[in-house]
Amino acid sequence: MLIVMQRSATPEQVRAVCDRIREIGFVPHEIPGSTRVAIGITGNPGPVSPELFQDLAGVHECVPVSRPYKLVSREVKPEPTVVHVRGEPIGDGRLSIIAGPCAVESRDQIMRTAEHVARNGAKFLRGGAYKPRTSPYAFQGLKDEGLRLLEEVKKVHDLRIVTEVKDTETVREVAEVADVLQIGARNMQNFSLLEAVGRLRRPVLLKRGISATLTELFMAAEYLLSLGNYEVVLCERGIRTFETMTRNTFDISALAMIQHHTHLPVVADPSHGVGICWAVPAMALAAVVAGADGVMVEVHPDPTRALSDGQQSLTFEAFETLAAKLRFLADWRASAGIVPSRRSTHK
Amino acid sequence: MLIVMQRSATPEQVRAVCDRIREIGFVPHEIPGSTRVAIGITGNPGPVSPELFQDLAGVHECVPVSRPYKLVSREVKPEPTVVHVRGEPIGDGRLSIIAGPCAVESRDQIMRTAEHVARNGAKFLRGGAYKPRTSPYAFQGLKDEGLRLLEEVKKVHDLRIVTEVKDTETVREVAEVADVLQIGARNMQNFSLLEAVGRLRRPVLLKRGISATLTELFMAAEYLLSLGNYEVVLCERGIRTFETMTRNTFDISALAMIQHHTHLPVVADPSHGVGICWAVPAMALAAVVAGADGVMVEVHPDPTRALSDGQQSLTFEAFETLAAKLRFLADWRASAGIVPSRRSTHK
Amino acid sequence: MLIVMQRSATPEQVRAVCDRIREIGFVPHEIPGSTRVAIGITGNPGPVSPELFQDLAGVHECVPVSRPYKLVSREVKPEPTVVHVRGEPIGDGRLSIIAGPCAVESRDQIMRTAEHVARNGAKFLRGGAYKPRTSPYAFQGLKDEGLRLLEEVKKVHDLRIVTEVKDTETVREVAEVADVLQIGARNMQNFSLLEAVGRLRRPVLLKRGISATLTELFMAAEYLLSLGNYEVVLCERGIRTFETMTRNTFDISALAMIQHHTHLPVVADPSHGVGICWAVPAMALAAVVAGADGVMVEVHPDPTRALSDGQQSLTFEAFETLAAKLRFLADWRASAGIVPSRRSTHK
Amino acid sequence: MLIVMQRSATPEQVRAVCDRIREIGFVPHEIPGSTRVAIGITGNPGPVSPELFQDLAGVHECVPVSRPYKLVSREVKPEPTVVHVRGEPIGDGRLSIIAGPCAVESRDQIMRTAEHVARNGAKFLRGGAYKPRTSPYAFQGLKDEGLRLLEEVKKVHDLRIVTEVKDTETVREVAEVADVLQIGARNMQNFSLLEAVGRLRRPVLLKRGISATLTELFMAAEYLLSLGNYEVVLCERGIRTFETMTRNTFDISALAMIQHHTHLPVVADPSHGVGICWAVPAMALAAVVAGADGVMVEVHPDPTRALSDGQQSLTFEAFETLAAKLRFLADWRASAGIVPSRRSTHK
Repeated sequence: MLIVMQRSATPEQVRAVCDRIREIGFVPHEIPGSTRVAIGITGNPGPVSPELFQDLAGVHECVPVSRPYKLVSREVKPEPTVVHVRGEPIGDGRLSIIAGPCAVESRDQIMRTAEHVARNGAKFLRGGAYKPRTSPYAFQGLKDEGLRLLEEVKKVHDLRIVTEVKDTETVREVAEVADVLQIGARNMQNFSLLEAVGRLRRPVLLKRGISATLTELFMAAEYLLSLGNYEVVLCERGIRTFETMTRNTFDISALAMIQHHTHLPVVADPSHGVGICWAVPAMALAAVVAGADGVMVEVHPDPTRALSDGQQSLTFEAFETLAAKLRFLADWRASAGIVPSRRSTHK
Repeated sequence: MLIVMQRSATPEQVRAVCDRIREIGFVPHEIPGSTRVAIGITGNPGPVSPELFQDLAGVHECVPVSRPYKLVSREVKPEPTVVHVRGEPIGDGRLSIIAGPCAVESRDQIMRTAEHVARNGAKFLRGGAYKPRTSPYAFQGLKDEGLRLLEEVKKVHDLRIVTEVKDTETVREVAEVADVLQIGARNMQNFSLLEAVGRLRRPVLLKRGISATLTELFMAAEYLLSLGNYEVVLCERGIRTFETMTRNTFDISALAMIQHHTHLPVVADPSHGVGICWAVPAMALAAVVAGADGVMVEVHPDPTRALSDGQQSLTFEAFETLAAKLRFLADWRASAGIVPSRRSTHK
Repeated sequence: MLIVMQRSATPEQVRAVCDRIREIGFVPHEIPGSTRVAIGITGNPGPVSPELFQDLAGVHECVPVSRPYKLVSREVKPEPTVVHVRGEPIGDGRLSIIAGPCAVESRDQIMRTAEHVARNGAKFLRGGAYKPRTSPYAFQGLKDEGLRLLEEVKKVHDLRIVTEVKDTETVREVAEVADVLQIGARNMQNFSLLEAVGRLRRPVLLKRGISATLTELFMAAEYLLSLGNYEVVLCERGIRTFETMTRNTFDISALAMIQHHTHLPVVADPSHGVGICWAVPAMALAAVVAGADGVMVEVHPDPTRALSDGQQSLTFEAFETLAAKLRFLADWRASAGIVPSRRSTHK
Repeated sequence: MLIVMQRSATPEQVRAVCDRIREIGFVPHEIPGSTRVAIGITGNPGPVSPELFQDLAGVHECVPVSRPYKLVSREVKPEPTVVHVRGEPIGDGRLSIIAGPCAVESRDQIMRTAEHVARNGAKFLRGGAYKPRTSPYAFQGLKDEGLRLLEEVKKVHDLRIVTEVKDTETVREVAEVADVLQIGARNMQNFSLLEAVGRLRRPVLLKRGISATLTELFMAAEYLLSLGNYEVVLCERGIRTFETMTRNTFDISALAMIQHHTHLPVVADPSHGVGICWAVPAMALAAVVAGADGVMVEVHPDPTRALSDGQQSLTFEAFETLAAKLRFLADWRASAGIVPSRRSTHK
């Protein structure tokens, strides 16, 4: 159930509706819009009767919500959400570029990469300090040392840091450095981690699980929003199928589905999506045209010597070439009316 | 094994090499290139010794072929293949637009659609006369009557007909009307049909099977080429995964893989790929940027009344809007050096 | 819609109901039961009004059918179907063993294998004369010569021949030898082949497609039944998933689903299901316990020299060991009340 | 690399080899066998030279290990591992039955269920106190209260408690009650949780991830063993495929693969595997025949009122019927030489 308030509704009227919701044992969620406030209800085991609310002062209408996900849904909040990261928006119609190595490996590696991607239009630097790995014997990241290197980058470059938080133990530590907390594909349904991050007020990049349905992705985001963290960016990074020629199957239609069914911004990760460096640029460009609010690509000074994901990392040169094309297509789609996060344009 | 002839090799020298191949019990395939001829060998159970050929007159070098597919491979023929359909090329770097209804339903429906798509830049009309359907009780197409209506279209419009051939019995009948014989996803491994079509000299649009790996798609095409039909266009139309929000998962990376590993042109079918009309345009545009040589979309005068696939068909208006954007992106990618069928551009 | 006749209904009354169905433009299907006749209706685009029939003489009741498949459904025919193959039943509660090589390779090979499997309790010999193969360069079977060898086997051994029919051109030829026409996984949705076989009166073994849903398998069988061929046995042979350690994922739950939702017998093919010879026996035994009416396994005198599927073929010794266990479990399940094809036992 | 010691090797010789391994910067893992000790080496980035060890006193041979998983592999430890849980073995050739509700819901519910399953041969009670759920609004378990109820059960019945540990925060709390710590499918690659549990000395039931390959499952187990916890039982619980008629696709071949490639015991969970109560018994019986060391099934006093997984829970009556058949088949397979965890029997 969604209670849409009148445009003229006062803060007191909003508060009174929220109190009534709590009285009957449910949880209110205030959802501010540009012209009016709406209030979502969660915690109800089944449908709630609109009669309980429609006569309260300031209430415009009571709308039933048909899907298992509520707060992430366009039904509940038709306007797109713009996530602001230290002054830089994601989801405002422009294209955000997130680039950097899979893992922070050394000061030289991360500094050179940061300098290069910043010069080519990236406003966000990706780079893992903590790396969840399939094998216990594989490189697991520089950990705390990696975080300190990322901190240095922030002092030098106009870059916001996107880095993975892999468990609840290190949430606080990572959150001191990260501008955007990345939740990895293998952790999409780590509900304790979702709860810990949901209680922070810090932007989150939530990656789709390796074989998660979109509904499951939306439910994972719902964990974050239901705990009060609305600064959520979703990320398509490829799904597992029977095809073995590519690392994953990059599900480009997920971009359109996310834009249509949720109000959250969406970023494409073609590096993991396809997993083969020469195919990454084509996939990145396609993602822009398909409506991604951002693209995240892996870049490394020397991919052949990368400690992880070298086969899918772009060289500096390849990134520079790609970035120019990304900018062109981002401008074109804006002028052509293909602005992401605007539901109407997808019709 | 591939035998590359010298630039100066004479037709007699080529013939002598072919004779030698036949003598030892294998099958030669002459592959003409722009500057020199190559000769593929098939029918050999294992590797063939280069010593059998390298001293023959006119032979430049003997190259082992490492993959199970031979004649479709870029290893064997690095130059892209351009398929010519009644004067109209597919795979020459420009974008081919194939549009029309799922099935031919009536004279009025197909004529109006043909007129509309031709006016908006399509050079190819799609439309099924024979429709393979999951249910024996579903509409199976107008059959012979459908073919006659397609024949009429050809007399009126500058459109090439792409229509499905569903079995060997009707190959001849369909081939009298079709400019391009479409082999559907469910028939990708109907080897008797592949053999019948492989013996024709008629362009073929071979759709990827619903859960076919790309290697299997290439092997299916190999059936066609090994019988002498080199006029093959591959088609990505979505694969089956666990995701249920879309009809299929449109595997956009397949476009890049096909361009990289084979010399054949590739067409994207976002209508089947995603299966939801409002998402088709975004997927079609993404396919152009990802390197498709053509896009095939379903268009219907009144999708809500279509006898099949209505939920994924574009209205005339939506197609018109899309076509303009397709043309823009096709021009841009040519100017940006993202020309499909040019392997080097994918590096 | 299903029209259930009274027990006392006369043949004339049944005929009158069928005539009425034809009058209104639909197709009647008489479904004989042990105590009364039912009449299925197909060809209707939507629900049919029961009022059209319920007052006719001899009609007991009119039952709506809720699923897309009709004639194969337990809703329409609650009693299990027993398919009789030259005096040998499949689906009567006992276990049918179908064994033999992937392909007929030579007289010696097929004769020795036939002798061995017959001696160990198999009543059915499998063996391909026509082999659909992914690669055009792979062994495609002995074709007509293979059929003649199978014909010889029939004269010597008490074995019914199960062999694949791969296209409409060879249906007649194969049907002269085959006691059971096998339709392979890649042909499950070759609708023209289904129609050709549906018009014969010959038992059919219909394999599930490589990534076919069970509903699609049932719809494929519906093609056969709707054309009058009720002698259909379904076959689970593994489906395509992301797992690569096995050739396919053997979907053992499909056996239970088929027994529950259809009245047709079901055979398990663990050789293709798992694709690794040492794992075949465990899977075959599991299939018996899970309710298979039959098991089909590949057996070869010398698997290491087989021209196809050697890696999944049992040696004579392994088959002998397995056959004894299969017989034991088949007896046990009968005594334990786990009789396949009896819906009630699955509850 | 695996260093196999001589039968006569002394503890001092073993210690000396371990010291040498540490000296060169790697990690030794002592693997006791019935007749001799082996020492695994991990932490090495590539192959290790056997020359470093083969001349040390007591060394029998140095064996390279070819797979990414080491300590879980049959290559490293050919003998099956038996996990002892408070006096009750899993993996000794007999069948372990684990039964109980999805979640602990009330004292009455868990007590009645415990009494019933114990009376019917179960030595292990399953029941979740902490329930990871896809939706933040779904029942998440009784948490601490649930643990206290499980504690009570242990005082009354001869049952070992199998309950899920969902995060590192609650590991200690859960480990106080649980005899076996269950790691759920969604946590199979929660590496921080694996590390926390790997440092305990407590049996673990590790469930296969929803779309995990078997190699990934083995790598997840490797995390546990590499930290010193060898008391690991693997669990097949169905994988995600395109089929929607069942909740998951129960991968019965995984049982055979796990027995063949690892030395760890394996339990089948047909309740999640198929997700439909009437099909669970057939799948459970099949799993026994296919070689499972144990079966885990959901049982509830009143499935229609269960707070979670009611559709796949057995009634008391159904469990009783099933348990008798499970015992019969377990005895049969022992007498027939189909003893699980004995690699040779799978050949």
